[in-house]
Amino acid sequence: MSEQNSTTAYASLKSRFQRLSALGGAQAVLHWDRATMMPEGGAEARAEQQATLSLIAHETLTAPETSDLLASARDSVDALSDWDRANLVEMGRIHAHATATPTDLVSALSHQRSRTEMIWRKARAANDFAMLAPELETLLGLIRQQADAKAEAFGLSPYDALLDGYDPDRRSTDIDRLFTELEGFLPDLLQRVMERQASQPAALPVTGPFPIPLQEKLGRDVMATLGFDFAHGRLDVSHHPFTGGVSDDSRITTRYDEDDFIESLMAVIHETGHSLYERGLPAQWRNQPVGRSRGMTIHESQSLLFEMQAGRSKSFISHMAPRLKALFGGEGAAWTPENILRHYRKVGPSLIRVSADEVTYPLHVILRYRLERAMIAGDLVPADLPGAWAEGMNGLLGIVPPDDADGCMQDIHWPSGSFGYFPTYTLGALAAAQFFQAAREEGGMNNLMQETLDLSLEKGDFALLASWVRRNVHEVGSSRTPDEIILAATGRPLGTAAFKAHIEARYLAE
Amino acid sequence: MSEQNSTTAYASLKSRFQRLSALGGAQAVLHWDRATMMPEGGAEARAEQQATLSLIAHETLTAPETSDLLASARDSVDALSDWDRANLVEMGRIHAHATATPTDLVSALSHQRSRTEMIWRKARAANDFAMLAPELETLLGLIRQQADAKAEAFGLSPYDALLDGYDPDRRSTDIDRLFTELEGFLPDLLQRVMERQASQPAALPVTGPFPIPLQEKLGRDVMATLGFDFAHGRLDVSHHPFTGGVSDDSRITTRYDEDDFIESLMAVIHETGHSLYERGLPAQWRNQPVGRSRGMTIHESQSLLFEMQAGRSKSFISHMAPRLKALFGGEGAAWTPENILRHYRKVGPSLIRVSADEVTYPLHVILRYRLERAMIAGDLVPADLPGAWAEGMNGLLGIVPPDDADGCMQDIHWPSGSFGYFPTYTLGALAAAQFFQAAREEGGMNNLMQETLDLSLEKGDFALLASWVRRNVHEVGSSRTPDEIILAATGRPLGTAAFKAHIEARYLAE
Repeated sequence: MSEQNSTTAYASLKSRFQRLSALGGAQAVLHWDRATMMPEGGAEARAEQQATLSLIAHETLTAPETSDLLASARDSVDALSDWDRANLVEMGRIHAHATATPTDLVSALSHQRSRTEMIWRKARAANDFAMLAPELETLLGLIRQQADAKAEAFGLSPYDALLDGYDPDRRSTDIDRLFTELEGFLPDLLQRVMERQASQPAALPVTGPFPIPLQEKLGRDVMATLGFDFAHGRLDVSHHPFTGGVSDDSRITTRYDEDDFIESLMAVIHETGHSLYERGLPAQWRNQPVGRSRGMTIHESQSLLFEMQAGRSKSFISHMAPRLKALFGGEGAAWTPENILRHYRKVGPSLIRVSADEVTYPLHVILRYRLERAMIAGDLVPADLPGAWAEGMNGLLGIVPPDDADGCMQDIHWPSGSFGYFPTYTLGALAAAQFFQAAREEGGMNNLMQETLDLSLEKGDFALLASWVRRNVHEVGSSRTPDEIILAATGRPLGTAAFKAHIEARYLAE
Repeated sequence: MSEQNSTTAYASLKSRFQRLSALGGAQAVLHWDRATMMPEGGAEARAEQQATLSLIAHETLTAPETSDLLASARDSVDALSDWDRANLVEMGRIHAHATATPTDLVSALSHQRSRTEMIWRKARAANDFAMLAPELETLLGLIRQQADAKAEAFGLSPYDALLDGYDPDRRSTDIDRLFTELEGFLPDLLQRVMERQASQPAALPVTGPFPIPLQEKLGRDVMATLGFDFAHGRLDVSHHPFTGGVSDDSRITTRYDEDDFIESLMAVIHETGHSLYERGLPAQWRNQPVGRSRGMTIHESQSLLFEMQAGRSKSFISHMAPRLKALFGGEGAAWTPENILRHYRKVGPSLIRVSADEVTYPLHVILRYRLERAMIAGDLVPADLPGAWAEGMNGLLGIVPPDDADGCMQDIHWPSGSFGYFPTYTLGALAAAQFFQAAREEGGMNNLMQETLDLSLEKGDFALLASWVRRNVHEVGSSRTPDEIILAATGRPLGTAAFKAHIEARYLAE
């Protein structure tokens, strides 16, 4: 094929993927609306709309012409710019994931996912695992078929083939190494942190009520502090906080509890981290695969960088404490930065992953990683989950859930068919610690004021941090793999050292 | 072709149109979100999403297989049920409208529509018609191409071909006849109404402020009174009130003015009329063409039936006045039903169509109908609109706009490429009067209580009216033409007599 035809093939691919991007944007709006605005009676029609757009996207991706165009474009990859070349690689990756799953299986999976998720909601509310088990069994069977099909197509193990869909090029060998390290030091570290916290004065209660309109104002103010642009996004309420929409219209949600403002505030900071990533993706590639965010590990690193690293830092809390005190009309010693900090940093084993502290959180993830690998390998059937869960919790955290609702039914991931997703939470936490360390080291060198990152956070100024992540992560888009991004930005491959140092500094020294 | 193949063809068409229905539903969500929730910075991405879904729908409709399937299905139309047969007719109608416009023209129109609408917003704000004129000229050129193409395909005049897209089977000969009748009696009627109102005591001012949260509560309460189901819909705020979403998730909007609650309340009643129509469409046909609402005349008849006929009736206002008084803590003679009624019924020539009373409104529509027919015929160029507008306003209403912003630039319809839409407002008003008359006549006969419609409205009970429209209009869907619906429901073809009687009774007798 001539070079000219290949260039034309690449141009055709670009317009095809631009259409897929617009379809994805429409899907994002439908998803956001469903979680924030839709009256319950609209669920059935919405499911049909979402399934239709997914099907159209799948058909567009797997059409024979897409394969032909990819083959032609690859013939003259050398004529392309670096970004175009990376874009072509990403097109290929997305295409490979789509074509690896037979269309019949796509449709069966979509149906069984909706069904299992719906029954999971009922089963969890009724604390009735027996209701969920057969549906989860059916779903797992389909997921394993998909994993096998992708494994065959990619030359990977079935679990790695699923993992690759959430965190490109991530392999379970990486995770095994990192998680083994974590398991090596975390239990002991947890013990020492708990002993130290027990020896310190208990946190004075910060008592509400904290009116929701004030909490909402606080959320918006802090979003502005972090650099959120309300001309390109919104803050709303949903059952679980999430970031939705598209780059130019990036919407975050939180939820409110009148007796506690910390959870909502931290959710806002977390989701703002996700949102700034989406907003910061390379503008000229926004509608192409190479301009997308780079998988769930990098995404989670951005939210945790803002929430766990910067948001709960002594520097930022010392800035926030007087703002909180003034906003809620607080009085007395409970509102000092030191006391507020204690509330933000309480560590100890608990049953629920989403409300776990950052020291115990990886142990929750390690449990899920083990169990889902066993399920994908066929070594564990869903019916045996409750026992395996209790055993794992006991081994890792020393506690056992009183029931399955707060045990193996607490997360939506498996009932919605997400296997291979969980590890990215902890990989993201490791990456966040490593990014923050690098940004702090670079801080003073990269600005005229020679200001350190800590000092800027103490003033409530996120410009330094925002500039660092924009240059090192956001603007890279998907032009590099997650590990390449981490290596280039921090000078080191993804590891546990920065995370360990962070935990030790924050919980054993500060 | 065998009957079996034809039946299969029809089944394939149904699943194709079900996909189109889901795509249309997704488009409705994108449209609603754009008008109510979207931050301004999301406009460009949203336009791309909307254009993509429109293009996909157009491609699906105009694919050669759709033609083939239609031809096959028509071969055995006799084997189909009445509803399936009507569904096939509607499929053919939608297909004919889509294929009549060449794809290039669809794309050029979509682009020029967005552009002209955007410039119209600026030109109207700057009161600068010269800024708009060249864009409108370009758009009109494309619309005329489309009209010619459809005229050729349907064997209609170009204007009738456009009209058919808004009001199926409507022809300008019908409109000419009806509008000539209106023009025959309205100016004289208007004169008599104004003289009578001048001889009556002036309305006592109902003074605010009327806090927006109270107005919103009022809107929701009245929606509930009218039968709106909040499990299947929402009330929000937008620049112009509209009804959006889908049958099972039908969302209305209004806007608020702290100094006036009447406009917002009437908008809510108007849009609830539209929404109840969408909700009442035949459930089992909801995702097929025959289950859709039946064009803009019938749609407008439903909103005006609720707003103008029932909502501003003496019966309903006598029910509402005490509710309004209690809600806003009103006192004195200003809050009597009689005085409130005076505010709802002030008649006189005015510049702006959307705020015109029901007596003068048709004259605004007649002006637009004349001008747009002349533009489509090539007898009037956009550059000459201001002069033609002033002349027409003077002839019909005896007033001349001081500028173009409140003259020929007041409506979005032409800048957004809607030619042939305006007459349906007045046809809808005529149909509403005819429906209300028929419902009142039937009222006492069709319920155990032998209650009249007026008596039920006096009690704030819309059940009788709702039941009448459900049976006679909503559940018919698109299984009949607009004129067939009107004839079957009222025993008479669409005419001006009921409207004239309504105006005379309300403004010269009550």
